[in-house]
Amino acid sequence: MTITTLGLDADDTLWHNETIFRLTHDRFAELLSEHHDREQIEARLEAVERRNLRLYGYGVKGFTLSMIETAMELTDGEVSPAVIREILAAGREMLGHPVEPLPGVRETLDRLSGRYRLVLITKGDLMDQERKLAASGLGELFSGVEIVSEKTPDTYASAFRRHGTGAHQAAMIGNSMKSDVLPAILAGAWGVHIPYHVTWSHEVADAPADEPRFAALDSISEVPPWVEARNRG
Amino acid sequence: MTITTLGLDADDTLWHNETIFRLTHDRFAELLSEHHDREQIEARLEAVERRNLRLYGYGVKGFTLSMIETAMELTDGEVSPAVIREILAAGREMLGHPVEPLPGVRETLDRLSGRYRLVLITKGDLMDQERKLAASGLGELFSGVEIVSEKTPDTYASAFRRHGTGAHQAAMIGNSMKSDVLPAILAGAWGVHIPYHVTWSHEVADAPADEPRFAALDSISEVPPWVEARNRG
Repeated sequence: MTITTLGLDADDTLWHNETIFRLTHDRFAELLSEHHDREQIEARLEAVERRNLRLYGYGVKGFTLSMIETAMELTDGEVSPAVIREILAAGREMLGHPVEPLPGVRETLDRLSGRYRLVLITKGDLMDQERKLAASGLGELFSGVEIVSEKTPDTYASAFRRHGTGAHQAAMIGNSMKSDVLPAILAGAWGVHIPYHVTWSHEVADAPADEPRFAALDSISEVPPWVEARNRG
Repeated sequence: MTITTLGLDADDTLWHNETIFRLTHDRFAELLSEHHDREQIEARLEAVERRNLRLYGYGVKGFTLSMIETAMELTDGEVSPAVIREILAAGREMLGHPVEPLPGVRETLDRLSGRYRLVLITKGDLMDQERKLAASGLGELFSGVEIVSEKTPDTYASAFRRHGTGAHQAAMIGNSMKSDVLPAILAGAWGVHIPYHVTWSHEVADAPADEPRFAALDSISEVPPWVEARNRG
């Protein structure tokens, strides 16, 4: 079955994202360092984020609200206004940070876009993801863009139906085993994992090692020869 | 030219939204009432929201962040933690409030969905809008759902191309002259205005009175006879 369509995750696949969240985590821990040690702060922030995920979804705005809520909890409700101001500023900076494609991304997508339909499939805040795609300069290489609230098998089935020739003729490429690879395979597509050097704890999952439609590549530059090899059978 | 496709705005067209924002405004003004009078509080909140729109877009999470920022400004950075806690709680309540279709909505959509393709086209937070559609019980009546960051002529052109037979055979129905009616007409569709009893100041615009593809109806129940009359020519 020929692969006609490639789905690409955005954050940490096409450009840095988790590193920017990490920097903000560092800054946040620093702000509260007189109250608690780093580990406690991280653990509480993670618990608050997890609790809020159902309500806030993914993205910078929900993360900013979760930082404020965590700061309230960690100071027993006596948070200083300076901390709130710093958190708001950190959120705004995340929403405005420059977007630089990761090494090899532009060349690889240039090469792929002539032969395959490329579809960007990403979670996060609608406006923020659109801004990042525009700022990356990669927008015109995609024939479809799907910004979604969750990445489920249904998400991939409908994205590949809408923008391609169905999931069975598609491969999804991304850094998250849990969000990019596993649900895409369940939808009938190939799942291609390309690791990023840090992974958000909510996105960690095991590789489906025995799955024939799973592939693990070291970098995005390996995608073109990989697809060509698949399509030669 | 036969109308085949009806686009419907969601907030304040299918269910209450602005009234819930208004209630939160009231609560917010009350929280800060010892510092400022109501008019000053409203004016400052509106200015902060407007300034943040480019960064936060539309929706409850950005509104919550803007309330926090406004509270910081109005207290000269001496905001009490209790106020922050109340604002966070108000945001969470907005994200969880029950969704009740407005009078006539369910019957009208039931009647329309057999004859026309219905497409929901709405701004706001992705996950929040999906939740509201699910909670409304109206989801299965739509053949397409588009949650967008801005409503421009391009938004309508592409939504009606994707889910229908093009903008020239579509009508967009909503309560905002600025977001629903005017850009849809510019895209070549009909624009149908159905007023809601309050309108967010950012959404106010004049009716395009001389525009042949503009219609003003009093309630959604008038939509079926209106479309039928158009399609009879």
